[in-house]
Amino acid sequence: MSKIGLLGCGTVGTGVYEIINERKGNFFEENNYKIKKILVRDASRKREGIPGELLTDNPDDILNDDEISLIIAVMGSYEQEYPAIKKALQLKKNVVTANKEIISKHMEELLGLAKENGVTILFEASVGGGIPIIESIIDTIKINKINKVQGILNGTTNFILSKMTKEELDFDEVLKVAQDMGFAEADPTADVDGFDISRKLTILSSLCYGAYIDNDDIYTRTVRNITLSDIQAADDFGYVFKYMAESELYDDNTFGASVTPVLIGKDSVTSNVNDEYNVVSINGNIIGQLSFLGRGAGKEATANAVVADVIKVLTKSVHDYTHLKFENEYKSCGIERYKNKFYLRVSIKDEVEFAKTIDIVYRNIENVNLSYEDGKVFLITDELTGEFMSTLCDRLSHVTEDVFYARIIDNIL
Amino acid sequence: MSKIGLLGCGTVGTGVYEIINERKGNFFEENNYKIKKILVRDASRKREGIPGELLTDNPDDILNDDEISLIIAVMGSYEQEYPAIKKALQLKKNVVTANKEIISKHMEELLGLAKENGVTILFEASVGGGIPIIESIIDTIKINKINKVQGILNGTTNFILSKMTKEELDFDEVLKVAQDMGFAEADPTADVDGFDISRKLTILSSLCYGAYIDNDDIYTRTVRNITLSDIQAADDFGYVFKYMAESELYDDNTFGASVTPVLIGKDSVTSNVNDEYNVVSINGNIIGQLSFLGRGAGKEATANAVVADVIKVLTKSVHDYTHLKFENEYKSCGIERYKNKFYLRVSIKDEVEFAKTIDIVYRNIENVNLSYEDGKVFLITDELTGEFMSTLCDRLSHVTEDVFYARIIDNIL
Repeated sequence: MSKIGLLGCGTVGTGVYEIINERKGNFFEENNYKIKKILVRDASRKREGIPGELLTDNPDDILNDDEISLIIAVMGSYEQEYPAIKKALQLKKNVVTANKEIISKHMEELLGLAKENGVTILFEASVGGGIPIIESIIDTIKINKINKVQGILNGTTNFILSKMTKEELDFDEVLKVAQDMGFAEADPTADVDGFDISRKLTILSSLCYGAYIDNDDIYTRTVRNITLSDIQAADDFGYVFKYMAESELYDDNTFGASVTPVLIGKDSVTSNVNDEYNVVSINGNIIGQLSFLGRGAGKEATANAVVADVIKVLTKSVHDYTHLKFENEYKSCGIERYKNKFYLRVSIKDEVEFAKTIDIVYRNIENVNLSYEDGKVFLITDELTGEFMSTLCDRLSHVTEDVFYARIIDNIL
Repeated sequence: MSKIGLLGCGTVGTGVYEIINERKGNFFEENNYKIKKILVRDASRKREGIPGELLTDNPDDILNDDEISLIIAVMGSYEQEYPAIKKALQLKKNVVTANKEIISKHMEELLGLAKENGVTILFEASVGGGIPIIESIIDTIKINKINKVQGILNGTTNFILSKMTKEELDFDEVLKVAQDMGFAEADPTADVDGFDISRKLTILSSLCYGAYIDNDDIYTRTVRNITLSDIQAADDFGYVFKYMAESELYDDNTFGASVTPVLIGKDSVTSNVNDEYNVVSINGNIIGQLSFLGRGAGKEATANAVVADVIKVLTKSVHDYTHLKFENEYKSCGIERYKNKFYLRVSIKDEVEFAKTIDIVYRNIENVNLSYEDGKVFLITDELTGEFMSTLCDRLSHVTEDVFYARIIDNIL
């Protein structure tokens, strides 16, 4: 009973198949672990390098096969995989999955179900592609209390921002390039509006804090509104734009969590994490800051993370995830606690709008670093609360529709 | 039989004791794992927070105690710890150590001895302080062939270089500050001449390549010769100085390994790893580059790594290190393969030396980016081999004694 069932044969599934089968004399061959069946939508379609007799379009062919003790779920479909994963655990099969939607919504339930049935579920590939961040968190919380998670968790949007910066292109242009390269989806919403990232932040934060951090408590702003002029202005001010996921646990048992475009100093490590690379930093009370950097997207990186989990299950060298508790109850304090400098851009049509903008700015903010170019006012504020900034932008929006702001994070590694 | 023996009660030992004892309701209390005895040089001297009856100055009190199943070796002494570790393994006790000298010299022997006796030896804290790099390498090589290791592996010298850069101080000044802060040893040789780093590089490279990479095959240059003028010149050319450990495995089964001062571009991640932080990057054929960043020195970080290993032993969730083989035989190709741009500084006393220097440079190197200030010629060369550069500097040393050069690494993340 050491056969593997693979759900999904898309990009990641093919990558997993290749790693398991195509390296000779490796772990899988030595131990005679094999992929016995593969669930696909159309079993009659031929796939290069994969024997047709492995393919099936019926999940029960895999779930009800007693020889299969491990399911790899990499279809990327919530509707198809969630019931299949539950059923697999109930049938005492181990599960390895890359599906962040399922894990972010049902981590606690699925870990409990695994425990009940004496098996395990691992999901390293659900966050940060090839970066072994989840195992590192599990190791770290055995000794530390983690109070902060911060990271660039989406390869597509980091690629877009990097390319905008390097090649001086506007957002939509680069998005189109990324789509043509197959690097961004035809419908890019999940990536560019932060849903993908906030799911990952839910998973990481819940593990770090031992409390379920609800996706709804993560303040999320799209990255779409960053223009080339913003990137150039930020550069002049000494900053770089990144699409940052962050959560922090405060001493009074409240937390704040956000996915927002931010500006960070050029001389930080994080500002130089470019292209498809992801970075995740955690902060423990004893260990201090640990950061992990690697490819956050792509067939190989994700498949590598999946197969690493598979090996852990098969060698039983599993960090016991199923003992994890999410008993702590922390309340979201929203973004109230954030007090930061802000970057602000106001597009103006004429002198009247300019005068009104300047008037509002100087009446509300004491120290301002301001510049003007091509019908746009750019400025860096003093330290302000998010609330204050939001109110200020409301006021400015009565002058002109095109107002954009972003937090500045100064104390980042 | 679940008691722990601690060899050493210096900075790291005290840190380990505190983590194990002072967090209430944690892993050690819950499972009733306790430190039973502590080996110190002078058992009569009182130590704050540590009961006197735990102390002994006789290693056999610990090694011959059947109740003690795990030895933590953190004395930092080769002579005392090497026989103790061997004896502990022979007596079927597990060992966790931070001693990089012992591990770099005897990793293969000690892993074999552990295997023979059905126990294990873990040594995460021997490299990179709190960074979980060894576990990550062991995980990565299960799937990948690693062909490169690169990193900043010494907190003391990274602190010195960072402080020289930020505060415009010379090497000796900062070294003195670091010594006064207890951050550098009174005899700084091991740190600043690269012996500490080359031991760590031996450990990492041997694990990555499955071959014993002898310390003698690591080309090592001191970091002492970097002056403030070098740092400022590098800055003008767009670079930052780092003390870099690197090894690379080539397709023809040769390897090159070095510990040298290098210049890297300001817009890289690595150039912004400052102060006591370490970074380690590995390159796998499937996963691509993975980088790990954290505190490389200090009581807490190192103690955290030691205790993490202890927990792995006690929960038996050990990655099986004892199966590791070092069977591959790779030959060192020295630094022959390196072909890089170089930074060169030549200090000159007068016009004659200046003319001679310029003459030698332009007769030997085609494209040069050169500047002159305060009796010093600074330049960046074309791509050259290390051999060529070494010969050139020999020639220049007939003109003036004060010649310094360093490689430029352009393709670093």
